Amino acid sequence: MTWPDQSSRSRSLYSRAQKVLPGGISRLQTLVQPFPIYAIEAQGATIIDADGVPRTDFMNNFASLIHGHAHPEVLAAVSETMSQGTCFSMPTELEIQLAELISERVQRVDKIRFCNSGTEAVMLAIKAARAHTNRPCIAKIEGAYHGMYDYAEVSLDSSPDNWGDTPNPLAYTLGTPASIVEDTVVIPLNDSDTSERLLRECGDRLAGVLIDPVPLSCGLVPMTDHFINMLHHVSHDLGALIIADEVIAYRLDYQGAQSRFRIDADLTTFAKIIGGGFPIGAVGGTDEVMSVFSHDQGKPSNSSSGTFTANPVSMAAGLKTLEILDSNAYDYLEDLGAYARQVVKTAFATSGFRGQVTGVGSMFHLHVHDREVSDYRTFFPKETEAEAIKRLHLRLLEDGYILSPKLGGFLSTANTKDQLDGFGNVLTAALALETTY
Amino acid sequence: MTWPDQSSRSRSLYSRAQKVLPGGISRLQTLVQPFPIYAIEAQGATIIDADGVPRTDFMNNFASLIHGHAHPEVLAAVSETMSQGTCFSMPTELEIQLAELISERVQRVDKIRFCNSGTEAVMLAIKAARAHTNRPCIAKIEGAYHGMYDYAEVSLDSSPDNWGDTPNPLAYTLGTPASIVEDTVVIPLNDSDTSERLLRECGDRLAGVLIDPVPLSCGLVPMTDHFINMLHHVSHDLGALIIADEVIAYRLDYQGAQSRFRIDADLTTFAKIIGGGFPIGAVGGTDEVMSVFSHDQGKPSNSSSGTFTANPVSMAAGLKTLEILDSNAYDYLEDLGAYARQVVKTAFATSGFRGQVTGVGSMFHLHVHDREVSDYRTFFPKETEAEAIKRLHLRLLEDGYILSPKLGGFLSTANTKDQLDGFGNVLTAALALETTY
Repeated sequence: MTWPDQSSRSRSLYSRAQKVLPGGISRLQTLVQPFPIYAIEAQGATIIDADGVPRTDFMNNFASLIHGHAHPEVLAAVSETMSQGTCFSMPTELEIQLAELISERVQRVDKIRFCNSGTEAVMLAIKAARAHTNRPCIAKIEGAYHGMYDYAEVSLDSSPDNWGDTPNPLAYTLGTPASIVEDTVVIPLNDSDTSERLLRECGDRLAGVLIDPVPLSCGLVPMTDHFINMLHHVSHDLGALIIADEVIAYRLDYQGAQSRFRIDADLTTFAKIIGGGFPIGAVGGTDEVMSVFSHDQGKPSNSSSGTFTANPVSMAAGLKTLEILDSNAYDYLEDLGAYARQVVKTAFATSGFRGQVTGVGSMFHLHVHDREVSDYRTFFPKETEAEAIKRLHLRLLEDGYILSPKLGGFLSTANTKDQLDGFGNVLTAALALETTY
Repeated sequence: MTWPDQSSRSRSLYSRAQKVLPGGISRLQTLVQPFPIYAIEAQGATIIDADGVPRTDFMNNFASLIHGHAHPEVLAAVSETMSQGTCFSMPTELEIQLAELISERVQRVDKIRFCNSGTEAVMLAIKAARAHTNRPCIAKIEGAYHGMYDYAEVSLDSSPDNWGDTPNPLAYTLGTPASIVEDTVVIPLNDSDTSERLLRECGDRLAGVLIDPVPLSCGLVPMTDHFINMLHHVSHDLGALIIADEVIAYRLDYQGAQSRFRIDADLTTFAKIIGGGFPIGAVGGTDEVMSVFSHDQGKPSNSSSGTFTANPVSMAAGLKTLEILDSNAYDYLEDLGAYARQVVKTAFATSGFRGQVTGVGSMFHLHVHDREVSDYRTFFPKETEAEAIKRLHLRLLEDGYILSPKLGGFLSTANTKDQLDGFGNVLTAALALETTY
């Protein structure tokens, strides 16, 4: 018997997990009802679960695998590297090569400091902005996800009950010191007037504005040109920095999402795809701003470091991954993303379900309503919508397709139009069932 | 020509690195004068640099490799695992196995939440303590290193110019918000009276006390029983938690350093050796405290997650490493550490240099003076001492031995008494030279 049957292997693994992991799970987003599906093997676009069931993966570990699972060239690079050691108290050439590659592709990244995760990258970028400006405050978009650093978590899950008229800055985690919330400005995506007012109120206490050009938790709709221009203008006036979080968005453009959306980033964060499936994070930026990490003038303003930072394995995997991710690969992903959105549109039309699809490049997102999505609040699902999303997610899993729990897809070069055609048929059937609710 | 010659390959790599990495380096602790030594390959206890020079490694990437470099069994486990994918949007059995192993060995660790680094582990533990108590403040030992989370960094590099009478809490990084310093209590290691007073002053605002049983940056001297008893007593009175940072110290005992030093930890952080040379972090604790991470009662008090969290590669490497690290291996390391301290003592005696050696288990630390070391302030080197440390470090590197820049050693099962004998001879000669200064 297979998931979600009570006699499945996933069920027995979950019972063991509940004894040694809080809630039985390490990452809440990988939890599905009635219990998680355990992976045993993955190749390319397919994950096989602990009961031997294969599924087509459109999620690619939350947008982190740009060439799908177990890419042979990436694994070969890792094998060769790790046979000569996996981490040292000395630097290696690989970290130089990966930094050279990224700084060559992303125009406003002159220099790079590596770390181990997107969470660390955002933390380092915020600390760098504070160090460069000697100011305490950070602004962020309401609802946008940027990892686990307390400041970046503010107003991550605001709801109609508490978000107020202009966005209330709200702690995400119980016990968050009040000062963390007080030092964070929360602005509404694509509402330039309100955002400009809030940023100017913070004035010369503002160190930086943390943005994701296409925030996933605002429904995967891009920032408007008007909003980006406001951010440039206001941050320039105030002497604050722009921090572009490209942990996810770097998959959108060879030269960075900041090139695609014409964002003049002072600092840029990376993670996910630049590690080729191995743990990594990085913050990049202009020579001037990145000098906060340098010892050239004595003790650095920020002495970031880390045991696993720039370890040769993650560097080798990332380097090979980005080498394969040439402009042809970006073109392929661009085309595939457009095809995915068309497939979903057709499924909505065929099934008669009133939904819509958003997205950019290799990313797409299903919505179970047809009101305009422009920010966190319009994206925020009503209770009946949340239930429909959950049903659809589980049905797609049962029928062999993996999307994110909120129905997002992040394609890899291992995904194909054929896979999307199959998905379209299954989705159409699932949506047709929904219309009966 | 080899390092530190200007025509060495390390020199030319550093020139490239300076163009794309701030200060030309990813981790400041790996910087030596006049420029870093680049690693090209490592096996067991030997690192070969970019110019082909082999050195014996007593540092093991800052205490993270407990079986030395490129251990064949660990690499075999990783090879097998990664051929089936390196990260998924689903859990795997490996994270259960690693959590089972650690919770079986460490008595007060019922449950575990994984993450990607020691920095993340300490951040999560601090956030968990705040969530459990719904209080904002954390206490830490003056000078102790616990990674890059701002609160953990407070008073990391205090100096006689600014440390004050009782420890002044001081920001480590430029631009640190004042509130972070205000929410941190800094206590002096092994000074029970002062520490008790400072903790009680914080009172019911204190969420937890972050300790390392043998803080490296306090000279690798252990906490006294008296100090530990005070911590138990006071934290119990105040309702605050004890967070044992075993990122380094877990290498001291099969059941955790907390067993060796009889510390009743509510939360414990791990990293370094539990990843077998691959990026990892973890926070463990009692069922009661770890429930802050659980969704069993709805939204968790702390919803920590992460793209690479519990990835199967780090889990497989850690699991194999800890399986090999049985109690015999701990005995070997214990004996080897005692031998290392004896070798260093003999070198001091033979050379006539007035120094001393501290340490516990597999760790040892040289000091270039003979005053008693009991805390950060007595460890803090005077300017002439800092110069001697630097000279000795560089001379040992030139003569083929790798210690930390402050002259600490963290042995692995790949280290041997023969290696230490060779080191003793070289050290004796280096110390004899010093006596002429």
